[in-house]
Amino acid sequence: MIKTGLLEWMKEGHILVPSFLLSHYKTLGLNESELMLLLQLQNFSEQGNMFPTPAEISARMTFTEAECLFFLQKLIQKGFIIIEEQITDSIRHESYSLEPMQVKIINCFLSEQNHKESEQVKQEEE
Amino acid sequence: MIKTGLLEWMKEGHILVPSFLLSHYKTLGLNESELMLLLQLQNFSEQGNMFPTPAEISARMTFTEAECLFFLQKLIQKGFIIIEEQITDSIRHESYSLEPMQVKIINCFLSEQNHKESEQVKQEEE
Amino acid sequence: MIKTGLLEWMKEGHILVPSFLLSHYKTLGLNESELMLLLQLQNFSEQGNMFPTPAEISARMTFTEAECLFFLQKLIQKGFIIIEEQITDSIRHESYSLEPMQVKIINCFLSEQNHKESEQVKQEEE
Amino acid sequence: MIKTGLLEWMKEGHILVPSFLLSHYKTLGLNESELMLLLQLQNFSEQGNMFPTPAEISARMTFTEAECLFFLQKLIQKGFIIIEEQITDSIRHESYSLEPMQVKIINCFLSEQNHKESEQVKQEEE
Repeated sequence: MIKTGLLEWMKEGHILVPSFLLSHYKTLGLNESELMLLLQLQNFSEQGNMFPTPAEISARMTFTEAECLFFLQKLIQKGFIIIEEQITDSIRHESYSLEPMQVKIINCFLSEQNHKESEQVKQEEE
Repeated sequence: MIKTGLLEWMKEGHILVPSFLLSHYKTLGLNESELMLLLQLQNFSEQGNMFPTPAEISARMTFTEAECLFFLQKLIQKGFIIIEEQITDSIRHESYSLEPMQVKIINCFLSEQNHKESEQVKQEEE
Repeated sequence: MIKTGLLEWMKEGHILVPSFLLSHYKTLGLNESELMLLLQLQNFSEQGNMFPTPAEISARMTFTEAECLFFLQKLIQKGFIIIEEQITDSIRHESYSLEPMQVKIINCFLSEQNHKESEQVKQEEE
Repeated sequence: MIKTGLLEWMKEGHILVPSFLLSHYKTLGLNESELMLLLQLQNFSEQGNMFPTPAEISARMTFTEAECLFFLQKLIQKGFIIIEEQITDSIRHESYSLEPMQVKIINCFLSEQNHKESEQVKQEEE
């Protein structure tokens, strides 16, 4: 039993969250609920579900289906996720892409790096 | 500049979040705000700060210091974190331990495994 | 350019290697070359290639195709990997499964835990 | 017992290996043995041992102490690791830094990105 338990646990896996995202989501304009929904999308995606329904997301969160839908729309409006369409064998597939969020993280990271560097230059000049 | 940027990014690091925690925190009795605070504690701890103040946590969240303190107390009451004391060179150090949360995750995982197994047995008997 | 660089780097991703595997592969009966080949299989699999050819593996290692084939056969013989077959739309797909390796890691981990516990009991009895 | 087993397993942790490193260590001028030794240093470091002895490393590898020492010297010569010195409370501490390796990974990654881009430009011109 314990062997099976450990094997099943290993199979569950992990998601990787950038440390920088945890310390800067507020700067990016996200609140805790929105970030959690983004992490849910990442988790579903790594489990092979690229387009979870509001009902599927709601089953894992304390939010109702309507609230999940509202948050998804807000994340699209704010430019953190986009819906992508693929057509394979004349069947249309949709998926959430988190690439816009990654671009936002990078922009925030670079602007902070620039800020640090100019602070350093200032200090050296004084 | 790009080299420095990438190197600094690498140094930022990641935290590992069990996939099971993302899909079962609701079952564990946590909401999104409480889970995010637990992830913040994990992130601080990996950056070497074992006992962040409500002010330090608040700087990374959309919550006020008072709200962070309230959530910390709630997480202690609910048995997700404990405060540990170490004494080195007659100086007292405090740190948050997330081990109680890990035990809760394991209990939840095992009870779900048991449930799955008994479902399977039932189906085989029918 | 730097934005693209960082975004491409993020997309590259990471593989997760259990710390226990790094400290115990010798106990499991693996040498460095065999472990590296197993990590290559894990990496290919996470990139969507479940059955890399010896040529594809060889392109990423210092081993020739023949050597990669030899190591693959040795890993199958030693019981670290198996070849699984799926049939979808009457097309046969093969893939390497690392589950046997995971089972070996678990067995090794549990036998070490048992050993530690019995050592502790002994010490308490003395 | 199973609870303890899972908890102990969780505490063991993982190391993160960039996918790019696994597919490009040969390009960086490393062989499997040298890469494994670098991963061992990373693992020791995450367990709090910043300067493992050849004996400690050898205990986890199929190499003798003398071989570990030889590989460490080779990695220093090739510019993948450096030994850093810190002085705290007039006690000298030494530690291995893997930052030179990270810089090499970045250089290799960027030169490949450049190559890809110029290939794309060529194709568009044709």
